[in-house]
Amino acid sequence: MSAQIIAIDAMGGDFGPRLIVEACIACLSECPSLYLTLVGQPQLLETLIASHALVDRSRLQVVAASEVIGMDDRPSLALRAKPDSSMRVALQLLRDDKVQAVVSAGNTGALMALSRHVLRTLPGVDRPAMVAAIPTRGGHCHLLDLGANVDCTAEQLYQFAVMGSVAAEALGIARPRVALLNVGTEDIKGNQQVKAAAALLQQASGLNYIGYIEGDGLYRGEADVVVCDGFVGNVLLKASEGLASMIASRIEELFNTGVVARMAGAMAMPLLKRLRQDLAPARHNGASFLGLQGIVVKSHGSAGVEGLQSAIHRACVEIREGLPQRLHGRIESLLR
Amino acid sequence: MSAQIIAIDAMGGDFGPRLIVEACIACLSECPSLYLTLVGQPQLLETLIASHALVDRSRLQVVAASEVIGMDDRPSLALRAKPDSSMRVALQLLRDDKVQAVVSAGNTGALMALSRHVLRTLPGVDRPAMVAAIPTRGGHCHLLDLGANVDCTAEQLYQFAVMGSVAAEALGIARPRVALLNVGTEDIKGNQQVKAAAALLQQASGLNYIGYIEGDGLYRGEADVVVCDGFVGNVLLKASEGLASMIASRIEELFNTGVVARMAGAMAMPLLKRLRQDLAPARHNGASFLGLQGIVVKSHGSAGVEGLQSAIHRACVEIREGLPQRLHGRIESLLR
Repeated sequence: MSAQIIAIDAMGGDFGPRLIVEACIACLSECPSLYLTLVGQPQLLETLIASHALVDRSRLQVVAASEVIGMDDRPSLALRAKPDSSMRVALQLLRDDKVQAVVSAGNTGALMALSRHVLRTLPGVDRPAMVAAIPTRGGHCHLLDLGANVDCTAEQLYQFAVMGSVAAEALGIARPRVALLNVGTEDIKGNQQVKAAAALLQQASGLNYIGYIEGDGLYRGEADVVVCDGFVGNVLLKASEGLASMIASRIEELFNTGVVARMAGAMAMPLLKRLRQDLAPARHNGASFLGLQGIVVKSHGSAGVEGLQSAIHRACVEIREGLPQRLHGRIESLLR
Repeated sequence: MSAQIIAIDAMGGDFGPRLIVEACIACLSECPSLYLTLVGQPQLLETLIASHALVDRSRLQVVAASEVIGMDDRPSLALRAKPDSSMRVALQLLRDDKVQAVVSAGNTGALMALSRHVLRTLPGVDRPAMVAAIPTRGGHCHLLDLGANVDCTAEQLYQFAVMGSVAAEALGIARPRVALLNVGTEDIKGNQQVKAAAALLQQASGLNYIGYIEGDGLYRGEADVVVCDGFVGNVLLKASEGLASMIASRIEELFNTGVVARMAGAMAMPLLKRLRQDLAPARHNGASFLGLQGIVVKSHGSAGVEGLQSAIHRACVEIREGLPQRLHGRIESLLR
C-alpha cells in the first residue's frame, strides 16, 4: 500500500497540542503507511513528542509556524493578519505537494477561508461545502452543507448534491441516493432556492436523485446524501448533538432512581456507554471540505483523541480514493 | 371556573374520527368546565358517540359539515373548492363567537390558510406563526415558526419573537428568555435576515432578548423562546423526532442482545417506556397558531388519543389566559 502523508494543524482545537500529539502518535502506531507532519510551535511540539515512548520519528515531522488562530478569531483576521499561522502553513504544505491532506480541529470559518484562499476551489465549484456522516437507522447519511455557506443559491445546492454524491461513492456507497432536505415531500413545498434546485437535480443525468426528504426521513435512513444550505445543516447537526446528549443524560438519571433501576443500570452500563458514543456523531467523525483543490478534514473543536483519530482516518481514505481528482472528473461531466 | 367551549375538526388527522371522538370524550370526563362541538359528518359522529357509555351530551354537540379536507390537499383547494369542510365550519364557529377555540389534527397548510382567511390576523401581525413546546434539559422551550412561513423577513422574525414571548408568559413563564436561532453566537454569524432581526430585537424594550442560540444550546435549555424561520424550525422539529425515535429503537435493540442485557432490559422496561414517550414531544403536545384573531391549536396528524387530549388541554389554557387579547395588547405596545 502506498503512503499517506498528512499535515496536522497542531495548534487548533479546544484542548490544545497535547491531545493532538497524542492522537497523532496513536494513529502512527495503528497505520504503518501513515506519515504525519505536525505544524506549530516546534519547541512545544518536540517536548510533547518526547514525553511519548517508542515514537517512529521517521514518520513524524515537525514544521514550524509561529502564529496560532484563535477559536474566536474572525476569518478575515486569519486571512490577513496571521501569515505564519499553523493552519495556513499546513495548507501551504498541501498546496506545494509536500503533503496529501490537511487535518485541523481549529476555527471552522478560518479554515474554510484559508483553504479557499490557499488551495482554491475546483473548476466549476462556486463554494466549497462541509460534509459529515451522521448515523441513521440504515447506517449513515452524508449531510451537507454543515455551515460553510449560510445562504445558498439553487445552483450551489445543485453543486453540493453532485459533490456529496461523488464523496459518498468514494466512501463505498454504490449509486448513493441523493435527496434535498425540505419541509415536506410534495412538489409545492419549500422555499424558492430548494424548488429551483429540485428542478436542476431532476434534469441531472448520472445522479441518483430521489427527491425531497424531511428531517425524520433523514434519520430513518431514506437517503445516502442529504443536501441543504449551511444554516439549516448547522442547526440540524448541532440540535441533534444537543438532543442526543440530553437523552443520554436522561437515561443516566432514569437508571439512578430507585434500587431496581440502579441494578438494571449497573447491568446495562457497557451498553449505555456504547450508546452515548453513538449519539455524538459529529464529535467522533471528521467533516470534509468538498470542492477544494486538495483534501481538508475538519475535526470537531472539542473532539477527544478518538475524534481526531477518526478525522485522520477519514483523510487517509480520501487520499487512497483520490477524492479531489474524482470530484474534478465528475463535476466536469455533470456540471454544465 | 368559567366554561371553555371548543370546536373540534372531527374529520382531520391520520387516524380519523373514531380516535378523535374517543379523545374528546376522555377530555370531557376529565374537565367539568369543558364544552366540545364536534364538526363533521353527523351520522358518523353520532354513531361513534353512541358507542361510548356515560357521555354527558349537554357538553357535547355535533355540528354538520359535509366536506373533508384531505391530508394532501393543497391549501388553495381547501380555500376555494371546499366551502363546507369540517375545518372551515369549525373556524367559522370561532369567528362567530359560538366557540372560544378550534382544535384540528388535519392538514397543516390548509388549517393555516383557512385560519388566516376566516379569522384574520391581529393588527400589526404580517403572518401567523406556529409554536410548540419541546423538551429541554431545563424544562421546555417554545420554538417558532414550525413551518407556516418558509421564508421570513427580519420584521417577521421580530414579530415571532414578540408573539412567542407573550405566549410563553401566558403559559406561566415569567420574563421568558427570547433567543434567535443561529449558526453561532458571535455577532458576525448568520444570514442577513437573522442579523437584521437581531438588530430589531436589541432595540425592543419590554422583551427579555438574550441574543443568538445554537441548536445544542436549545436542548441545553438556554432560552424559553427560540425564534427561527419556518423552514429551519420544521427541519429541526422533524429531525429531532426522527433522531429520538431512532435512539428509542436502538435502546430496545441494545436491551435485546444477550442474556444480561435482556435481564437489565426487563427490569428497566417501565423506565424505557417513559423515555420513549418523552422523546416524541411533538406528537404529545399541540402546536398553537399565534397572531390570529382567535385560538387555533394544531394536533399532530399522527397523534394518538393522548396527543389530541394535550392539544385540547392547550386550547383550554389559552382560553383561560385570554391569549389573543394579551397578544393584541402587547403587540400594540411593542410593535412600532
